[in-house]
Amino acid sequence: MQTKVYLTEDEMPRQWYNIAADLPSPMQPPLGPDGKPITPDMLAPVFPMNIIEQEVSTQRWIDIPEEVLGILCKWRPSPLHRAYALEKALGTPARIYYKNESVSPPGSHKPNTAVPQAWYNKQFGIKKITTETGAGQWGSALAFACSLLGLECKVFMVRISFDQKPFRKLMMETWGATCIASPSTETNAGRQILASHPDTPGSLGIAISEAIEAAVTDKTGSTRYSLGSVLNHVMLHQTIIGLESKKQLEKIGIKQVDVVIGCAGGGSNFAGLAFPFVNDKIHGASIDIIPVEPTSCPTMTKGPFVYDHGDTAKMTPLLPMHSLGHDFIPPPIHAGGLRYHGMAPLVSQTIIEGLVTPRAIDQVECYDAAVLFARTEGIIPAPETSHAIAAAIQEARKAKEEAKEKVILFGFSGHGLMDLSGYDRFFQGKLVSYSLPESEMGSAIRELNGLPRPKVVRTGKW
Amino acid sequence: MQTKVYLTEDEMPRQWYNIAADLPSPMQPPLGPDGKPITPDMLAPVFPMNIIEQEVSTQRWIDIPEEVLGILCKWRPSPLHRAYALEKALGTPARIYYKNESVSPPGSHKPNTAVPQAWYNKQFGIKKITTETGAGQWGSALAFACSLLGLECKVFMVRISFDQKPFRKLMMETWGATCIASPSTETNAGRQILASHPDTPGSLGIAISEAIEAAVTDKTGSTRYSLGSVLNHVMLHQTIIGLESKKQLEKIGIKQVDVVIGCAGGGSNFAGLAFPFVNDKIHGASIDIIPVEPTSCPTMTKGPFVYDHGDTAKMTPLLPMHSLGHDFIPPPIHAGGLRYHGMAPLVSQTIIEGLVTPRAIDQVECYDAAVLFARTEGIIPAPETSHAIAAAIQEARKAKEEAKEKVILFGFSGHGLMDLSGYDRFFQGKLVSYSLPESEMGSAIRELNGLPRPKVVRTGKW
Repeated sequence: MQTKVYLTEDEMPRQWYNIAADLPSPMQPPLGPDGKPITPDMLAPVFPMNIIEQEVSTQRWIDIPEEVLGILCKWRPSPLHRAYALEKALGTPARIYYKNESVSPPGSHKPNTAVPQAWYNKQFGIKKITTETGAGQWGSALAFACSLLGLECKVFMVRISFDQKPFRKLMMETWGATCIASPSTETNAGRQILASHPDTPGSLGIAISEAIEAAVTDKTGSTRYSLGSVLNHVMLHQTIIGLESKKQLEKIGIKQVDVVIGCAGGGSNFAGLAFPFVNDKIHGASIDIIPVEPTSCPTMTKGPFVYDHGDTAKMTPLLPMHSLGHDFIPPPIHAGGLRYHGMAPLVSQTIIEGLVTPRAIDQVECYDAAVLFARTEGIIPAPETSHAIAAAIQEARKAKEEAKEKVILFGFSGHGLMDLSGYDRFFQGKLVSYSLPESEMGSAIRELNGLPRPKVVRTGKW
Repeated sequence: MQTKVYLTEDEMPRQWYNIAADLPSPMQPPLGPDGKPITPDMLAPVFPMNIIEQEVSTQRWIDIPEEVLGILCKWRPSPLHRAYALEKALGTPARIYYKNESVSPPGSHKPNTAVPQAWYNKQFGIKKITTETGAGQWGSALAFACSLLGLECKVFMVRISFDQKPFRKLMMETWGATCIASPSTETNAGRQILASHPDTPGSLGIAISEAIEAAVTDKTGSTRYSLGSVLNHVMLHQTIIGLESKKQLEKIGIKQVDVVIGCAGGGSNFAGLAFPFVNDKIHGASIDIIPVEPTSCPTMTKGPFVYDHGDTAKMTPLLPMHSLGHDFIPPPIHAGGLRYHGMAPLVSQTIIEGLVTPRAIDQVECYDAAVLFARTEGIIPAPETSHAIAAAIQEARKAKEEAKEKVILFGFSGHGLMDLSGYDRFFQGKLVSYSLPESEMGSAIRELNGLPRPKVVRTGKW
């Protein structure tokens, strides 16, 4: 009874998959403050040009640099597990597989893009990278990558997480990064917020504003900013997850899966696993592809497809995406990585095209699923990951009702060892169900004023 | 450039290696309170008979049950990594390999014995297992194993760790175990200590006494006790580490290593990696085999070879081992897993025979090594593991001085994600060097009164 499938390092994918080459309708461009499409040059103070080129590329396959592969090999190819014990507990005829990204040293899928981003920055002569982090997964991953590549790293961590999760800061420091609470006194954006709201818990939007400001105002010109999700190049780097999964499934004779599931905050974990399968679907395969979000932050299931900013302070371009509004403040659920108002433009586009079908699940159901998973499969899931598990369990139960031997694949994006306090609240019965009423969306979305509208193109050409 | 070596599940060892079959001099028996060798029957209230049979077995190879293999396969065979980046940072001609046991769901080597122990208990009809835990690695591992096998698990956790490490308790609870602070009011042993020392921080010795009492006083007769190190069957179960390592080294053409290193608290991590290589040494191979301990708890390097109890309350039999005295209270260093007064009898015997050469290293040097490792190889080590890394670095520097292309193998026993507070103190400069003066050994050892003496047999027959 084989419980997991490995690939050798030789079998690792040598190229990332760029779904922009295969989308039925072309992506709509990001817009500048003047409402006109922004040009690569306008992004140059923020990102190195080699990453900007990737961001706008429509080339289908993009080579993974050798040195990047060498570092990814420290934990990749990641294992694909068969969830025998979970299947048994559910009494389902479905075969459930999960791709285990928790084996990376920082414990999640995030290093898959942190490593190439740090590498491209280094190639471009950059010495220091700034970023923001919410729950801490992304900040840890970038600190890890910068450490291995010899770059400086500075992380602006949302104040409330900074205070509640001192171990995340220690992880980053052990990898040599600097981690400070946001809002800080080091940037104009931070000082302004502190002046008006001295006791603010901070937000991801504010932290993004600070990290961008810290990068673009560095007078040496050798600092850039890095984002851990949302953007096209981040989706690209994560496709190694799905490409490996396909090879692993082929190795055990599975040519076609029925259901693919990933949790989605900014979208990169979901996209990384799903896009190679979305490509199959575009070319005729019948697959249910499900990005999962919390009912308390229902960007994909309730947010309209609009042009919106990626951050609160509107420092980023306008991106065509599903959004709850850049001034939306999500309720404090435990899956910090899923508390984001927007969704990656590439993922949003696959939703518009009907290629993927988003689903929102309540956090109490997710923790139920996480505990069942921990007690059967043995790995304690991150709160974000529990959303994918809950959806997989829904699908496995449906397969049981329909008496179908479906093949279900989901992304196990990270372990929960650094985020156990949510389990504590769950066991104490303190976690409550919560569905977002429309009145609580960000004002920009409720009123839809002042924002240009992207075209909603449903080609049905797949 | 291959950075790590995997085995397939098919290549996994099917048998454990029992070094008792090959030791140049036979093991001396545990003694009861009357100074006479104890019999298997006397242990029956504490352990199930199938485990007792393993404890006293001298059979060289013992089959790993199929169901145990099925569970171990969730994370095994564990990877063997080549530490290219660390080698480069040290400028050493040595090739450094490490066997990565941090990939298990609880994050250490401990599940290698927790799973078979739970399985043998279940086979024997046992419903519930009690144990103690200090830093929390062992308690987590047994909770994990009992969860997957459907057994109840109760963990007595040393009070000071219980208070300082709430996440460890949450891990155990997520796996369905009960974890309470020791001393507790649930046992006579606990109540007596609390009556005389209401504010005691607890100790491993007290927690062992409570866990044994809780097992033997259960009136249903279906509860037993489990120990995570020290005993022969625990060493046996851990040999899968060394057996896999040998296969992995052979796969890349390495027939002979020069140095094997593991940290040793109770001894099972070291024994698991080293014993298959000790067997090679008995049969003529030239290998330096080094168990590493902290200078603050120098059991192997300063403790005499004596008959001593495994616990403070003298509930365990007298074991022939290196010991600092059962009433020794180690200073509060951060490597909690290495704060034990004794050493496994099998490891002690290999020391007496000169087959392995213990080394004590100060915790400040260990944290230096851990940080260098994290920033080169990318994985944050557990404080215990850092002792093995520090010794590997010493050996790699020696190889550089001698200009020798040595092959060094060390055990990466666990990650440090649950134990980051030690790094905090290290970065703040608050960790101090500490060597134990002889006057601070346990009184039983200082005076050597009241304890029988085992024979010190050095055969030199290897």
